[in-house]
Amino acid sequence: MNLSHPLSGATLARFRGLLDPALRDAVSVLDPWGERMAAFALGWSDTDGGPHGGVGGGFGGVGGGADRATGGGTTDRGAGSGTNGISRGDGGKGVRPALALLSAEAVGAPAESALPGAVAVELVHAFSLAHDDIIDRDELRRHRAALWKAYGVGPALLTGDALLALAVSQLAGRPEAMPYLSAALIELVQGQSADMAFENRPWKGPGEVGIDEYAEMAAGKTGSLLGAAAAAGVALGGAPELADPMWAMGRDLGVAFQIVDDMLGIWGDPRVTGKPIYSDLRHEKKTLPVLAALADGGSAARELSALLAAGTTDEESVRHAAHLVEEAGGREKSQALADRYVETALSVIDEHLPSATELRTLCNSLVHRVN
Amino acid sequence: MNLSHPLSGATLARFRGLLDPALRDAVSVLDPWGERMAAFALGWSDTDGGPHGGVGGGFGGVGGGADRATGGGTTDRGAGSGTNGISRGDGGKGVRPALALLSAEAVGAPAESALPGAVAVELVHAFSLAHDDIIDRDELRRHRAALWKAYGVGPALLTGDALLALAVSQLAGRPEAMPYLSAALIELVQGQSADMAFENRPWKGPGEVGIDEYAEMAAGKTGSLLGAAAAAGVALGGAPELADPMWAMGRDLGVAFQIVDDMLGIWGDPRVTGKPIYSDLRHEKKTLPVLAALADGGSAARELSALLAAGTTDEESVRHAAHLVEEAGGREKSQALADRYVETALSVIDEHLPSATELRTLCNSLVHRVN
Repeated sequence: MNLSHPLSGATLARFRGLLDPALRDAVSVLDPWGERMAAFALGWSDTDGGPHGGVGGGFGGVGGGADRATGGGTTDRGAGSGTNGISRGDGGKGVRPALALLSAEAVGAPAESALPGAVAVELVHAFSLAHDDIIDRDELRRHRAALWKAYGVGPALLTGDALLALAVSQLAGRPEAMPYLSAALIELVQGQSADMAFENRPWKGPGEVGIDEYAEMAAGKTGSLLGAAAAAGVALGGAPELADPMWAMGRDLGVAFQIVDDMLGIWGDPRVTGKPIYSDLRHEKKTLPVLAALADGGSAARELSALLAAGTTDEESVRHAAHLVEEAGGREKSQALADRYVETALSVIDEHLPSATELRTLCNSLVHRVN
Repeated sequence: MNLSHPLSGATLARFRGLLDPALRDAVSVLDPWGERMAAFALGWSDTDGGPHGGVGGGFGGVGGGADRATGGGTTDRGAGSGTNGISRGDGGKGVRPALALLSAEAVGAPAESALPGAVAVELVHAFSLAHDDIIDRDELRRHRAALWKAYGVGPALLTGDALLALAVSQLAGRPEAMPYLSAALIELVQGQSADMAFENRPWKGPGEVGIDEYAEMAAGKTGSLLGAAAAAGVALGGAPELADPMWAMGRDLGVAFQIVDDMLGIWGDPRVTGKPIYSDLRHEKKTLPVLAALADGGSAARELSALLAAGTTDEESVRHAAHLVEEAGGREKSQALADRYVETALSVIDEHLPSATELRTLCNSLVHRVN
């Protein structure tokens, strides 16, 4: 299985042909200045407004058309901070619209029927990256300057608002899908807020972050938009009765995705993930492998706890901390938890949409990836 | 007519009794940290979470309940920058939800029917103020620290996003009203964007800001949310066929409101408006009185043009510029244009809702105000 492009070439080309013009149409209502910033936020252009090498309209870093296909999927590997949900690299790029379109096809509708939902979730994703980079002061995104770094905080903030407004307008007249997008917006904000709040909480002792809290944060920050994509897809495809289970499916899938993202931050190949090794550990982020290791209570966990309490700033302690996380079972437990969430998610598809093989493949690929 | 409180005491109390609990209910889904920031953004509390003296849930600076009514409407006079649409003072406070509720009553429905719309527009207003203050680096809002100044840029940005998400959720399942809120969101962003772009354009010559462009900016920045309030009000009240005319009515009303706001910034009493005199002139904002004066072409206009080109930084030139704006007819022309927009707005009410006297009074009061 091709992990970077779990969809077949034909499906990918078909979806790209739908999504690209629809996204461009959506942002065309902005003034030229706003449109240029939106194009940059969506990865279509550089700061000068010229096309960004080899990056298409959202599917896996593949060029938007044959004339721009040079560069393939290689120039857009993520330099995300890991704080933004599905943002690390190609593994997540374009997955939300694909999930919406495949969900419509899974209920027997043409992919086109879910296009407003696909456009909406991609716009919300771009909105959340634009704002998260301001909040987290991340200067890099996908090996380029973050939007705020390229255009300033005020314009980047406003562009994020514009992307969100355009997303809402896609589904404003579709009450069968809009409530899921709306719920995802609230959960996104709540998840980001929880993630920020975690930073000020201790590793161990009173106020420590529990694994349940982590899962709730990840379901909001990473899962809710996947849930909205899947729910909007089936609802717009004519099966609103499946929207609730698909919403739950997407949220569970998102938790698994976030756990895998956390794991790749420690045990992934930085040349493949595009993210500096151990950067979450260095920034003392409350990732699942560390939380799971600390919960173990054995001698490695106690040593890890003491190391983290002292601060893991130098390279040697960061490397040692990563070693202790694995020794205390953090890797094993994280994988087990990710597997459990994926199983729960896939069981929804197996129960309600047993013949949706492409949808199942896409979901599966999100958690069996290397970047 | 009481300009600060154009609604009768009974109507005001009735609306407050509806809106206050609904707004509090809406923000209660946030985590405690987010809820506290939202409460601050909505003017209910100080940074420590305690009640803010005499400020209620949105109607005219009157206390939210009898137990908190001390201070009346006097502590909340606006210190807005004039860049945020209806933000200068009490004149605009609470007008959006009142417009929604009165619009529902005007079509014979109970005010309650428009409550989700009233809550939504008030939340969007709070969202826009939170983000605008970050964009404009305004440190003060309603005589208090701006949200970002009190809690930091990241948390304030996220709180703005949360308020917007909550607003959307109010109408997510109401396709008769949601498209108007959605359109207002896009226009708000476009209006704010245009206002920012105006700052980099010359006073005269190629690239100068035309009066038509000003009106379009004001319709977006200030009018669109009034339009959404009125349109949602009649649509939720069971008369969706009146939503389009009421949307246009609100946008026109907003242009008039913005013109009056600009005029108060030059000829208003700073003790009443709560805003330093000439602050727009000092910040070289493209306000209508100045644009209208420059368009005059006479000797005062030419002198004004030269003065603005040289930069109006010292107090003496600012005072002289204000004098020249009036001499070149800027005041007279602004009043005439505001009157024209109000007339157009009121003609919609007169045509479609001739017996809606309270609604007419509210709209009229917005442009015949002193603060």
